[in-house]
Amino acid sequence: MAEKSVYTYRVEPQEVDFTLCATVSALGSAVLNTAGLDAHRKGFGVDALNRQNHSWVLSRMAFELDRRPGQYTDYRIATWISDYGRVLSTRNFTLADAAGEEFGRAVTQWAMLDLASRAAVDLSGVGREHADAIVDAPSPAEKPRKILSVTPVATAEHRVAYSDIDFNRHMNTMRYIDLLFDAMPLDLLASQRAVRLDIHFLHECRYGQQLTVGWERQGDTWLFSIRNEEREAVRASVEWR
Amino acid sequence: MAEKSVYTYRVEPQEVDFTLCATVSALGSAVLNTAGLDAHRKGFGVDALNRQNHSWVLSRMAFELDRRPGQYTDYRIATWISDYGRVLSTRNFTLADAAGEEFGRAVTQWAMLDLASRAAVDLSGVGREHADAIVDAPSPAEKPRKILSVTPVATAEHRVAYSDIDFNRHMNTMRYIDLLFDAMPLDLLASQRAVRLDIHFLHECRYGQQLTVGWERQGDTWLFSIRNEEREAVRASVEWR
Repeated sequence: MAEKSVYTYRVEPQEVDFTLCATVSALGSAVLNTAGLDAHRKGFGVDALNRQNHSWVLSRMAFELDRRPGQYTDYRIATWISDYGRVLSTRNFTLADAAGEEFGRAVTQWAMLDLASRAAVDLSGVGREHADAIVDAPSPAEKPRKILSVTPVATAEHRVAYSDIDFNRHMNTMRYIDLLFDAMPLDLLASQRAVRLDIHFLHECRYGQQLTVGWERQGDTWLFSIRNEEREAVRASVEWR
Repeated sequence: MAEKSVYTYRVEPQEVDFTLCATVSALGSAVLNTAGLDAHRKGFGVDALNRQNHSWVLSRMAFELDRRPGQYTDYRIATWISDYGRVLSTRNFTLADAAGEEFGRAVTQWAMLDLASRAAVDLSGVGREHADAIVDAPSPAEKPRKILSVTPVATAEHRVAYSDIDFNRHMNTMRYIDLLFDAMPLDLLASQRAVRLDIHFLHECRYGQQLTVGWERQGDTWLFSIRNEEREAVRASVEWR
């Protein structure tokens, strides 16, 4: 049975917001970099999968932050895979400061895509092959929640630009998270309250597409729906605690 | 007489564009972080200046890149101050790969602002105080060029959002550079041609302001003017070589 892997990071100046604390998207970026690095080290990274014309696709993410570390702070991310289903693999993360105190956690669910057919690959076989990589530890937080419906009461527009896209010319995960936080009032973002983000990736948004970010508020929870020119692409909720 | 200082960096996954090479804004961010770090180490960083209610303000920047390093590449930035005028201090940079081959250079000019009066501080006295920090080496590239006028033939709109702002709640330098590159065609950005950027910061853009990015093309040079709701805030040129 495998062990959790631990990677070290530092909050760099370009990762903080006006409060001089790391943004949710910068910490989320470190979480996803950790996933990529760990899969690569264990031989089932995107590079290895591409040789079989497969790739990992992030389907859902839950991200909880009790607090956001300040500029130049060292922190560690531990990661492990807890289980494979037929369609989704679950990769978990805890974020801890240099003293070992946990300040955040994430649960991500990934599908494997066949790049030729654009269909999901059945992970049953993959799960057996990679059984060595599975760690017998539960997810550190509730798995990504289903967001059943969003009825926007306000919207913002965004055209997918060069600075938004990844090597597939699709919108970057973290730029979606920026769009969510850009829609909320600055006082709330300055409040340093604990926060839980749930985000579902339904369809890709491509370079040049015009996106409509819609949202509604239910008490301390903000619900979001991002549409591209064709359909709903991302659904998310941000719960302030 | 002082020596050049050298700092080491690595191109992280969140710093690359769709070509998997570092973006101009990510490398520019490393240049400005180097300036901040070096000033801090030598006792005249923003932290020390703030105690006298002063701060450094970036006035102009010239940035030349022969090529852009790929993801996970190690590189080094050397920095030195070459001279002080009455209003502007000139800080220089060279960027080199792990083998020591130079692939980029920058010249930045900084004013010192009195935060109470919002006026520039006369640097004559400061120059004498910090004479030890001056390195007897010329700037590695032509100093930031004056951009006399821009007559936009096309425009894009951008509202200054949470993800754009620094601790002053002003638009970040690097987000301006993103706006310039977002306006150019993807083919050109994919071409990996050498590039020179000149950028002048005329006025601050604040959270919530609506910006108009205007541009015209003169051969291989793109000229930009960014206006906030009140006036022209930034002027820039991007020359493809």
